[in-house]
Amino acid sequence: MRLAAKVYYDGTAFYGSQRQPDRRTVEGELLRALRSLGEVRNFKSAGRTDRFVSALGNVFAFDMDRKLPPRAVNARLCPELRVLAIREVPGHFHPRYDALHRTYRYFLYDEGFDLGAIREACRLLEGEHSFHNFTRARGKNYTRRLLSVTAERRGEVVVLTFKGESFLWEMVRRLTSAIAMVGRGELSLEALEEALLPGVERKFPAAPPQFLVLWEVAYDFEFEHEEYTAGKLSQQLEERFAALCAQAAIAGAMSAELRG
Amino acid sequence: MRLAAKVYYDGTAFYGSQRQPDRRTVEGELLRALRSLGEVRNFKSAGRTDRFVSALGNVFAFDMDRKLPPRAVNARLCPELRVLAIREVPGHFHPRYDALHRTYRYFLYDEGFDLGAIREACRLLEGEHSFHNFTRARGKNYTRRLLSVTAERRGEVVVLTFKGESFLWEMVRRLTSAIAMVGRGELSLEALEEALLPGVERKFPAAPPQFLVLWEVAYDFEFEHEEYTAGKLSQQLEERFAALCAQAAIAGAMSAELRG
Repeated sequence: MRLAAKVYYDGTAFYGSQRQPDRRTVEGELLRALRSLGEVRNFKSAGRTDRFVSALGNVFAFDMDRKLPPRAVNARLCPELRVLAIREVPGHFHPRYDALHRTYRYFLYDEGFDLGAIREACRLLEGEHSFHNFTRARGKNYTRRLLSVTAERRGEVVVLTFKGESFLWEMVRRLTSAIAMVGRGELSLEALEEALLPGVERKFPAAPPQFLVLWEVAYDFEFEHEEYTAGKLSQQLEERFAALCAQAAIAGAMSAELRG
Repeated sequence: MRLAAKVYYDGTAFYGSQRQPDRRTVEGELLRALRSLGEVRNFKSAGRTDRFVSALGNVFAFDMDRKLPPRAVNARLCPELRVLAIREVPGHFHPRYDALHRTYRYFLYDEGFDLGAIREACRLLEGEHSFHNFTRARGKNYTRRLLSVTAERRGEVVVLTFKGESFLWEMVRRLTSAIAMVGRGELSLEALEEALLPGVERKFPAAPPQFLVLWEVAYDFEFEHEEYTAGKLSQQLEERFAALCAQAAIAGAMSAELRG
């Protein structure tokens, strides 16, 4: 029986998603938990995420003798890694190649950005372009199609949402750097547009990984969250939100006091 | 020569402020740095802070042969501990007994508190009371005078500011618990007032330590921050603020998404 699992993880707790000997990785932990419950074959992931990158919905597929409830797997996992849903999929299912599109979200602290300019930059990135200046990958086909790129202000943060069929290595983080530069007035829309033309060399650095989330991988079916797990994780994240808000307020108040 | 040092620390990086063998503590680290620069005698602190409690301004006094610039000490300290100012004080100076008053700030995540009720609770606590229900200390004189208690909403957080001549062990954290209960409508102002009467037994638990800051210890002189150190620390805290805001936004957005 082939199963697909939708998985949350806090990227700061792992050494990346991909299996590595002697490192705590998302795949390594998940495989260990699954294997303690039965034989696991043909384990595949929808996509690697770099060290410190989180996911609300990465997807893994594997063959097992029986369908497992997420709770049974979660009981064998650390709290930074949660299986939200498990469902049966066709025997040939591959979470990477069968994905319709992926959504990433980057949470960018608002330095006082020009949100109008950021939105124009987002619009400009939509569609099919050569992203050779926005990746660490080399010697590949750099053409990708971005279905939508949006920016939304939420309190102190601007949330960038990238929806695309597939992404190059570090593409979202490098696009985020460029968008932030536009928001700061350091990069013109014309220069950004030019960097998307084949043959133009203008590399952008990668924004830090810890503010990036692989939000969703979409298929021609839906995942249904296990209610118990989603509820518990939601509460755990709400508590984390409260604690981080208070810690942020401490840092902000101290910084202001020292500036005098 | 007797010197007084005003010291910042991030409480989450230490095992409390007081010296302990084989533990990284604020006093331990500070003493180690000072001793590497000369002989240190008669080392005293303005007050102990519990594990995870931070300070923008705890004060330590010690005798040394010469006055040191904060930068020289900071070069031998971890970044979570910064000497903001060092000044000469009279030979009999004791940072604890010579303090005029102390200011603590508690950063409370706003659960949707009734701020009006919280402010009434604050006003009620001002003045001289028996704080026997608001301390972990036993068999002591429980009478203390609070010079002022105020509450201010700042974004997602309510900042409580307690100014008093001196405080009992865990007093601020236990007062904060009571104030939060008033803000939630779980405790009446009458019940709070009653808990301040000698002979009435109604113990309150301590709010978590990591959101408490020893903000200032006041003397009949001023500390002048070393500009370089204050500027650098302010920038470091601003970067921490930005990172924590983004991490909070991630947790908040994920939690909301899971609630559906």
